[in-house]
Amino acid sequence: MRLELFAIPGIPEVQPGDDVGAILAQAARASGEELRESDIILVAQKIVSKSEGRFRVLSEIVPSDEALDIAKRCGKDARKVQAILDESSAILRVSNATPDGIIIARHKSGWVSANAGIDESNLGSTDGQLLLLPIDPDESASRIAESILRCTGEKPGVIVTDTFGRPWRKALVNVALGTSEVPPIISWVGKTDAYGRRLNVSEQALADELAAASGLLMVKNAGKPAVVVRGLQWDRASRATCREYVRPVEQDLFT
Amino acid sequence: MRLELFAIPGIPEVQPGDDVGAILAQAARASGEELRESDIILVAQKIVSKSEGRFRVLSEIVPSDEALDIAKRCGKDARKVQAILDESSAILRVSNATPDGIIIARHKSGWVSANAGIDESNLGSTDGQLLLLPIDPDESASRIAESILRCTGEKPGVIVTDTFGRPWRKALVNVALGTSEVPPIISWVGKTDAYGRRLNVSEQALADELAAASGLLMVKNAGKPAVVVRGLQWDRASRATCREYVRPVEQDLFT
Repeated sequence: MRLELFAIPGIPEVQPGDDVGAILAQAARASGEELRESDIILVAQKIVSKSEGRFRVLSEIVPSDEALDIAKRCGKDARKVQAILDESSAILRVSNATPDGIIIARHKSGWVSANAGIDESNLGSTDGQLLLLPIDPDESASRIAESILRCTGEKPGVIVTDTFGRPWRKALVNVALGTSEVPPIISWVGKTDAYGRRLNVSEQALADELAAASGLLMVKNAGKPAVVVRGLQWDRASRATCREYVRPVEQDLFT
Repeated sequence: MRLELFAIPGIPEVQPGDDVGAILAQAARASGEELRESDIILVAQKIVSKSEGRFRVLSEIVPSDEALDIAKRCGKDARKVQAILDESSAILRVSNATPDGIIIARHKSGWVSANAGIDESNLGSTDGQLLLLPIDPDESASRIAESILRCTGEKPGVIVTDTFGRPWRKALVNVALGTSEVPPIISWVGKTDAYGRRLNVSEQALADELAAASGLLMVKNAGKPAVVVRGLQWDRASRATCREYVRPVEQDLFT
């Protein structure tokens, strides 16, 4: 099995209401590539959220007392803190270790990340706007896959990715927020190794591995928000959801 | 830029004292591939540790009172707990949530992972042995790269990988434990996006992205412990070390 990875070139600036799947299919075709049923397309959350109009205008946000208190502790704009609170089910850590402050939050979807995944870079718009995560990244991925199917007659796997930090490792990696038909987890439970022993890798985070791989080509400042992985042998999972990755709070050893 | 990923087939069972670099170069050649200066070779920790003889025999381990106490709390063999204690600078969490118990430890090298990276699967040897991480995975990677250079005249980048869990995401991904000349972190600090705004990705975990990508092909039960990434444009960093990933304890918000 050989894998080929390439970024889809020439993707225009995405606007609210845009059909991301159609944009990707057309950009791929214009570059001489046809997207295939067996491909997996990794799409940066940023263009998905833009197409879904997931913006908030800072000047319209009135911070609560809780937001004002957290802002004081971490040095972040209280309106941004309010936006983070509005997206989160829990605030896990607040730190002033960086100039912008650090807020680690559990997003309502279950993701634990910095700033509840809210983004203010690469917005391609006036200052004072924030970009939120898609409401349902699995649904976003499915919509993109269906739209590619309409444009090309082929329905690839689609994964919506975002870039997360890690608690004990510096720097960031792409992870999978939403999936269309690509299984997030491959279970090796019950399978044995060449010597008949239980495998130490019980569950493989397939969609996260794909997302991290796409990070090699999603150069953040060069407009490459979509990457194609070709050649992977994968089984379609019609009910696949990245919510499988969310560790239940009661199993969380670290918050 | 197009990336090609493939596993090196036909790698024999590695024994203590084996020259992993020579084994990889010969296996690649036997499969019709010559390793190239611009390639990056991802090598599973397991075969590196085996070649370095990093075994411990369970029956020779005498558990301390601390090990016996932790074993009681998590249900793990006290001798395995002692081996974990011997490899670790700190025990962060102990849980009996799984039949084997869970011990999250900070390895003396700084890595935070389950069981201090100690492995008892795929050992290809009699029961009762444990496999420890390499003493210096950067040094291991450099040795492998030098050995490939001697065999082929080309010195690829080499990354030694292991499979880690994540605190808030289920399932496991490959991460980089050691590197030869592949920079672990690419800093985008000070660079701006297409709109002149600071990038939200300040630091890209390049070696971890490569490690995770290799996980797509390192099928755990099919003897594919080495993967080649070809086509990546990367700058050699002669002093590269995966210790760059270790977040200083004083910056750790979660233990």
